[in-house]
Parts: sequence; C-alpha cells; structure tokens
Amino acid sequence: MVFKKRTRVDLAKKILLEHINPIERRERVPIKDAVGRVLAEEIVSAIDVPDHRRAAMDGYAVRAEETTGASPANPVLLREGADCIRVHTGSPVPDEMDAVVMIEDTIPAESGGMVEIRSAVHPNKHVSMAGEDVCYGDAVFGCGHHLRGCDIAMLGMIGISHVHVYARPRVAIIPTGSELVPMQSEPECETGKIRETNGIMVGLYVEKWGGIPVYRDIVIDNPDLIEKEILASADCDAIILCGGTSVGARDYVPGAIESLGSLLVHGVGLSPGKPAALGMIDTIGETGALPVLSLPGYPVACLIALFEFGRPAISKLARIPLMPDRLMRARLGAKIASKIGYLTYTRVQVTGGVAHPVMTAGAGILSSVTGSNGFVVIREELEGLDEGDEADVIWIE
Amino acid sequence: MVFKKRTRVDLAKKILLEHINPIERRERVPIKDAVGRVLAEEIVSAIDVPDHRRAAMDGYAVRAEETTGASPANPVLLREGADCIRVHTGSPVPDEMDAVVMIEDTIPAESGGMVEIRSAVHPNKHVSMAGEDVCYGDAVFGCGHHLRGCDIAMLGMIGISHVHVYARPRVAIIPTGSELVPMQSEPECETGKIRETNGIMVGLYVEKWGGIPVYRDIVIDNPDLIEKEILASADCDAIILCGGTSVGARDYVPGAIESLGSLLVHGVGLSPGKPAALGMIDTIGETGALPVLSLPGYPVACLIALFEFGRPAISKLARIPLMPDRLMRARLGAKIASKIGYLTYTRVQVTGGVAHPVMTAGAGILSSVTGSNGFVVIREELEGLDEGDEADVIWIE
Repeated sequence: MVFKKRTRVDLAKKILLEHINPIERRERVPIKDAVGRVLAEEIVSAIDVPDHRRAAMDGYAVRAEETTGASPANPVLLREGADCIRVHTGSPVPDEMDAVVMIEDTIPAESGGMVEIRSAVHPNKHVSMAGEDVCYGDAVFGCGHHLRGCDIAMLGMIGISHVHVYARPRVAIIPTGSELVPMQSEPECETGKIRETNGIMVGLYVEKWGGIPVYRDIVIDNPDLIEKEILASADCDAIILCGGTSVGARDYVPGAIESLGSLLVHGVGLSPGKPAALGMIDTIGETGALPVLSLPGYPVACLIALFEFGRPAISKLARIPLMPDRLMRARLGAKIASKIGYLTYTRVQVTGGVAHPVMTAGAGILSSVTGSNGFVVIREELEGLDEGDEADVIWIE
Repeated sequence: MVFKKRTRVDLAKKILLEHINPIERRERVPIKDAVGRVLAEEIVSAIDVPDHRRAAMDGYAVRAEETTGASPANPVLLREGADCIRVHTGSPVPDEMDAVVMIEDTIPAESGGMVEIRSAVHPNKHVSMAGEDVCYGDAVFGCGHHLRGCDIAMLGMIGISHVHVYARPRVAIIPTGSELVPMQSEPECETGKIRETNGIMVGLYVEKWGGIPVYRDIVIDNPDLIEKEILASADCDAIILCGGTSVGARDYVPGAIESLGSLLVHGVGLSPGKPAALGMIDTIGETGALPVLSLPGYPVACLIALFEFGRPAISKLARIPLMPDRLMRARLGAKIASKIGYLTYTRVQVTGGVAHPVMTAGAGILSSVTGSNGFVVIREELEGLDEGDEADVIWIE
C-alpha cells in the first residue's frame, strides 16, 4: 500500500476544518429539548431574578435602625407582625423592612406578641437583593452558547419557554464494499461475505457528537455507483464513506471525490487509519461545498480516523465546542512500539493504574478496541513508549 | 444554619452507596438502541469473525511452496487463475492457496495468462486467519459491560440483533417549597413567588447519567404532604427532593425521611451544598429500601450536591462505571478562598489556560454556574488556593 503523500494528522485536520462552514439553519425548540443544542440567538433577561428582595437566613425582617445597640444583655423589644416579621430563608422581605436578624439572635419576649432582638443589624444584612442572580437586560447567554442542564434551568428561571438553536448537521453514512452484506443478514450462507457494521458504529458516534446520522445502503466497489451515491447524499451537511479508500485496484472512493470536487488529503500519518482521505464535493446547496470523509473499511482504522477527523468536522458543523477528553493517568505495563511519522493509537486495558497494551497494529481486529477501555496515543516523533512510562490514557466512550 | 453534625463528602457518599443495590430488572432491546446501556447477559460468539481466511494485502494468492527462491532476478512464473489468484485486501483467500504475494512484487509475464512472482513467501504470509478477530465460543462481553458505539458494531459483527440489558433506574424528582410556581407560570403576578427550575435541571442530569427522570408536582412546605409525596413516589428506584433540607422551621424533608425510614446523613462538608441530607425509606418494593436524596433548594447548592451524591447513586443503581471527568489544566487568575472542612466548588471561566474565578459562595446565584465553563474543586484540608496555582478544572457539562 503506497501513498504518494502522507499528511500529518494535525495538518490534515486543519485543511479539512478550513473547508467546513458551520450550519446556518435554525429551528425553535422547547427548552426541555434544548440540552446539548447550540443557541442561535442571544438571550437577554426581561426580568430580575429574584424579582423581590429575599431573606438569606431564617429569622425576623426588621428596620435596621430599630435594632441599634441591641445585644443579649440589652435586647430591643419589637412588636411581631408590625415592627418585625418572621421570615424563612428565601422568603420575601416585606417592602418596609431592610434587614434580617437571624433566628438564633432572637427570642420570643415574655410579653405576648413581642420579640427580643439580641443583635444589631445594619441595612441589607441577611437580605439578598432583587436581581442578585440576573438583572433585567442582562445578556445571559451569547449566540453560539452550547446549552447544558444548568443552562436550561436558567432559561426556565428567566421565563423563557422556547429558544432558537442551530440545526443539527445531517451526516450521510455510506458503506462501500462488494464483500458486505447488511448487518441483519446471515453471511455464512455465502462464503467471503461479511456483515456491514461500520455504518451503525459511525452513526452512533455521529449522534453522540451532535449530528443526525442518515444511513444509506451499501454500495459495491464500482466507481459510477459510488459517485451516484455521493451525489444522492448531497442534500446532507457532510458525507462519510467507509471502505474503498486505499490505493488498491478496487479503491474507488478517493477518485470519486476527486471527480466530483476536490480531494484535499489522501493518506495520513495515522495508525491505524493511514488510508483515510478527505475532500469536498461541489453542490448547489446552502454552503456551496460539502465535506466528504473517506474512512478505511477495517473497523479499527475506521473508528480511529472517525475520532480524528469525523469528530472535529461534526463539532465545527454543529458549532459545538470540542470538550477535553476523559483521561486516566496510568503507568504502562509493557513496552509499546510505534512507527515514527504516525500518530499511533494503542488499545490498552487500564486496571489499578496500570495500562496493559492490548494491540497497536491490527486495523481489522475490532475486538482489540472492544476489549480495551482506553487509548494511549503516541506522537509522531516517538518510536514507542517504554514499560513503566506514565501516560494519559483516553477513556473510550 | 446550625447542623448537629457535618459529614465529610467522601464518607457521606460511602454511606449512601453502601445502602444502594444495583437494579436487577432486565429488558431486551435491539442493538441499535443499546448504546449507553449495561449488558445483563454474557455475550458469547457463535461464529468466527472473519469466517474465512482473507488477504491482508492486494496481490496474488499462491501456494507458498511454489514461490521458493523467487526474486526480481529470478522470478517464478505462475498461471493466473490456476496457480495464482488475484486478491484484494480483505477478500477471501481460496482454499487451495496459503499465502499472498503483494501486487508490488508481481508483474504480468509477457506470455499471456502468466504472472511473474518476484518474491518468495512463506505459508500464511499476508493472510489473515479465520477467527482472527473473534473465535467461535469467545466470551466477547461479560455481563455488566457498559456498551459503547464500537461494542454495538461488534455485536452486529457476530450476528446478534438484540441483547438483554439492565433497566434504567427510574428517579422521582420532587420539588418542595411554598414559594415555588411551575416553570411555565408568570410569577410576577404574585409577589414573592419564584419559578421552579431545579426539577428540570435535576431531570436532565439524571437522564444524562443513565436514569429515567419521573417528574412530580411541586409540594408545599408541609410535613404530611411531603411524606405523602415520598410514599407516592416509592415505585421508583430512587427519590430526589429539592428544597426544605436545612434546619429552619420550614425544612421538613429530613424529618419526613426519618419518619419513613432512616436519615443516614444530614449536613455535609460541601460548599455550596451543606444542607444536603441522604437517607433510605422502607418500601415493599423489589429492593426493600429506597435511597432518598434531599438536596438544597438553592440552585447552585442543588446542582453541586447532585454532582457529588446523585451521580454516583445513579451510576451504582444503573451499574454504569463512573467515567473520569473531563479536565482542563489551568493556572488560577486570582486567589480563591475556601473554608477548612468543606469540599468547595469554585466556578471559573477558563480562557487561554487561565482560570478566572467567577464565584465561590453564592449558593443561590445560578448565573455563577451558567457563566462558567469549569469547577475548581478545593479539598477540605485547604484554605483556598493562590493566584498562579496550577489546578485541574472540571469541565461543566
């Protein structure tokens, strides 16, 4: 397998992302369905939260000036219901009062209806102001904000029931390969056939990352049919093909991309995942050009190229910030070899702070991923890592 | 606000989790819907994957012994279609062949129908064995495995269409507080009322962590009504109440838990979140006892107590492993104060590797969370952190 050129992963990613324009389509959704979505409008509060002053402590609301000099030895007597009003944490402070004396600093006086105030308070003591959380006119969220559970509560708090969000990118997923049969089939009837499962795998991650997977049928290794299928998927916001991306006689996908638009990258310094190709096809759609990712057919190579190129592409389309990885800090239980010039994904099982390598090569061995809980990613400059080395292990989700 | 006892967060969590039994209920789902679910059965492969030997390279399948001594200077001539068969990466190797010569090491001979083999290969060279990925009888996933996208592809590959998974825990969410009105209302009509939004916030995180939120109506601050509502929710797998958990005159929730079962913890070394209470109520249900979490009504305290206690509780019920947090490494842009004895959640905004503190106290100021992208968590032993200190910042999801 010889590539004319092998592009570094970071450069390949940069080239791809430069060609991707974030989605402009918007839709209106109820806030309960807006978690994980990206705001397509600025949210300005039309109210104060809270809309009233409230007690920050259990106790009595008072006029601060009437407590001057109060102490346990020299309490001030106030009429309950008139000069002091019982309040609970969070309850409104009556308009005529301006401070709260903590319940611990009061006792009911022996004369009925009176309360002994045993501590002086200054104005606003233990009073939370109206608008303490949000003020009328505050820009609570900017356009482009990625909504979390806590943000939905905030929207509810300021009385917003629906928001405009950007549409989720629709991503066509096209499996290619004459050896493939649909996942539901019984391939053992036909020797040499294998079940197509890259499609569902890619689709589930597309969904996890904020896209809508659009599953297309398997296409056999035929350049015309591949081009036709790419064109038939051009109403989506991106296209991911699996298989047919190498430089063999039956690898027609990169050529198809080239003939429908431009092939930006073919062959990357990624292991597994080397044959990946990235390109754009011309369309008459919204954005003018459509990113097309051609991922290897071998499942591990497919998955890793998807993580490296599919995830940032979908994030940019969807306007979702790339989140930091979930990392485990571990010590390597054995030496790992890697090839200089390749960003290398070693599958490891971390137990008790030790990362046991499962497999480094083996682009076709999906059990090397499903039997692992982490990836150790080795940089291009290195020739592997030694036993005992500390490594950040990426938790496989 | 005085608590008889203040339990350390790690101890409180341990006590809670010791009382929680994972869900035993199972259900059968199609594999496409099984991502994020937990297997309730062991998965054993009934087939080899692949079920045939396949070429690992583009080239010609041959009988290795017939290539002995072959080199560019001294090629061996083989009849195409009889003694050598054209194969592509991944395609089946015919039964009578036992090795593959790479296409680069062959050229069509001048005499028609013959191929020059310019490299000797030993048996199995460039041949992937049947069962190389998964063998018949392999235990592919153990019972209790948390299914990821890649695992779903594996299930599909070995011909499995449905799996038994554990049911997702149903979590009742009960907002309490006489000052609350439903989120959809217009509280400004009634002074001193505020919209109830902890419910949706808790529900969205419950869902994110693998549970099913069961939203209950707001209950006013009345001990009988609170007990009644807890009992009415006892068909769920856990109950989360928001509000009424402190030690004020209107805080009836811990007492209600006590009278219906046992209060394990009331008052924790968590800031914000100190008034949280944890307990169990007796039921006649599946598990015999039901965990009840009483979270503060102030939204930030509610959220942080939910992260500290709700998340591990739901994870244990759902049998989902706790994943490592998403962390950002940052330098503090300013000093942060904290109180010894409290695990303290400071809200920060990280930009350009610097964490700018937004707020440390302010249990009622939800905008301190929604205006932040991270938490700096300060351990109980410390009295704050200094400007310039390095900190692991937890990405707020």
